[in-house]
Amino acid sequence: MGKDAQGLAERSAAAMFERDRASQGLGMRIVEMAPGRARVTMRVRGDMVNGHAICHGGFVFTLADSAFAFACNSHNHATVAAGATVDFLAPAREGEELIAEATEVWRSRRTGIYEVTVTTGQGVKVALFRGRAHQIDGAVVDP
Amino acid sequence: MGKDAQGLAERSAAAMFERDRASQGLGMRIVEMAPGRARVTMRVRGDMVNGHAICHGGFVFTLADSAFAFACNSHNHATVAAGATVDFLAPAREGEELIAEATEVWRSRRTGIYEVTVTTGQGVKVALFRGRAHQIDGAVVDP
Amino acid sequence: MGKDAQGLAERSAAAMFERDRASQGLGMRIVEMAPGRARVTMRVRGDMVNGHAICHGGFVFTLADSAFAFACNSHNHATVAAGATVDFLAPAREGEELIAEATEVWRSRRTGIYEVTVTTGQGVKVALFRGRAHQIDGAVVDP
Amino acid sequence: MGKDAQGLAERSAAAMFERDRASQGLGMRIVEMAPGRARVTMRVRGDMVNGHAICHGGFVFTLADSAFAFACNSHNHATVAAGATVDFLAPAREGEELIAEATEVWRSRRTGIYEVTVTTGQGVKVALFRGRAHQIDGAVVDP
Repeated sequence: MGKDAQGLAERSAAAMFERDRASQGLGMRIVEMAPGRARVTMRVRGDMVNGHAICHGGFVFTLADSAFAFACNSHNHATVAAGATVDFLAPAREGEELIAEATEVWRSRRTGIYEVTVTTGQGVKVALFRGRAHQIDGAVVDP
Repeated sequence: MGKDAQGLAERSAAAMFERDRASQGLGMRIVEMAPGRARVTMRVRGDMVNGHAICHGGFVFTLADSAFAFACNSHNHATVAAGATVDFLAPAREGEELIAEATEVWRSRRTGIYEVTVTTGQGVKVALFRGRAHQIDGAVVDP
Repeated sequence: MGKDAQGLAERSAAAMFERDRASQGLGMRIVEMAPGRARVTMRVRGDMVNGHAICHGGFVFTLADSAFAFACNSHNHATVAAGATVDFLAPAREGEELIAEATEVWRSRRTGIYEVTVTTGQGVKVALFRGRAHQIDGAVVDP
Repeated sequence: MGKDAQGLAERSAAAMFERDRASQGLGMRIVEMAPGRARVTMRVRGDMVNGHAICHGGFVFTLADSAFAFACNSHNHATVAAGATVDFLAPAREGEELIAEATEVWRSRRTGIYEVTVTTGQGVKVALFRGRAHQIDGAVVDP
């Protein structure tokens, strides 16, 4: 059962990532998956920064949003983001690797709340994100 | 005075955009600037979508976040995003042009609140964004 | 039709308010109702303030939340709050009358987004609130 | 040092609560204080509910907001709420005791982010709250 849940989480994330040209194109990598959890990395590239070599907040959000999507679809019920809140805490610089850790904090039949923390490789907190997910009909992969 | 404020808004946005590789790389265009307001467009490209040809929410947020940044820096006080909230209302599809309209709803000496509405060219609301900005030291351009 | 919608908005608000001991107990008054809109007032009492005679943010939120509830139930579909965001802009003082103006900014079959602005009688903005509503089964009043 | 920080947290909370007629009037009790943390309880009274005997979301928010205030002032720097986000997860009923647990998740020189979870005595999650605090000048109590 726990093993099945873990297998589903990994298979659904792999299936989603394979069709997700956006996350792929930004160089994201899923480094850990579990039911309700995802850990995703992304290196800040030259085309993600402003003139001060600081990562555009939109890309920090996008990384968090992808981790959120993998986590909230990990139970293999197709799920979409309804909304999110983000607090920007510290700048991320060109060349730095960012790590987004998404955790399910609550889930009902149709709705889930997920927290995502984005940190640098040195452990500096860059952003805190909280997303609200709504389950729609359908599965991510064949169970 | 009104003319000066308008001129400053246009010059600060132009200066910011010139150094903003991220917004440029995503094909954004500033189509209107005024003190406390910005209108920015972006076409949903193939590298912004998932397997269902629907724009990744992160790119919708990034567009809104850029419009927010131009609007909150339009008074020529250097200003950064502290946080934001977004509600995703409808999907945006590959090839569609999105329009983000940012408006200042409140501003004190150090803090400002901005609303951004993202719509398609057909006027369908895609996302509602609210950002909180904090003024830091310095100007965007020489006054 | 417009007249029916207006009548429904007024009747549903009246029915809700009659059973709402919380809003009544805080001295709120609905001063205007329309489909998707509500205007509610509340005077800051001595039991709503801290030691500096400044209204506890929770009561400012509660006023906004009530205005939101009346607005989102104005179409006579039973609707509950899923979540909200609030920005506190200025303090409200004991004895001041606060006015919350709720406006529907978007509505789909099941979900709605509402903005609420809380101001003092002098027009000073005290708080900005955005709520997300979910429709449940049932009506507020007999249609 | 750790002892001093604990003592300051307790003294600042006691001083704040003593002048906080709002939290007192709602029957709140501070049951635990530590640097960056607070645990506050409140019983849902008849004057906090609507006609369905369900606690008005505003009072749930107010409880969370008080716990947030005690936690963010626990370092004895005077601090105010700039904004907050709340997700309502389950209804709270008349007579139930609610417990708000506030935790500091990040703090810089001037700004802090706090998470508050509101649960029933049975451990059911009622609401998730995230607040942003800004330090102003002054101390809460004499150090």
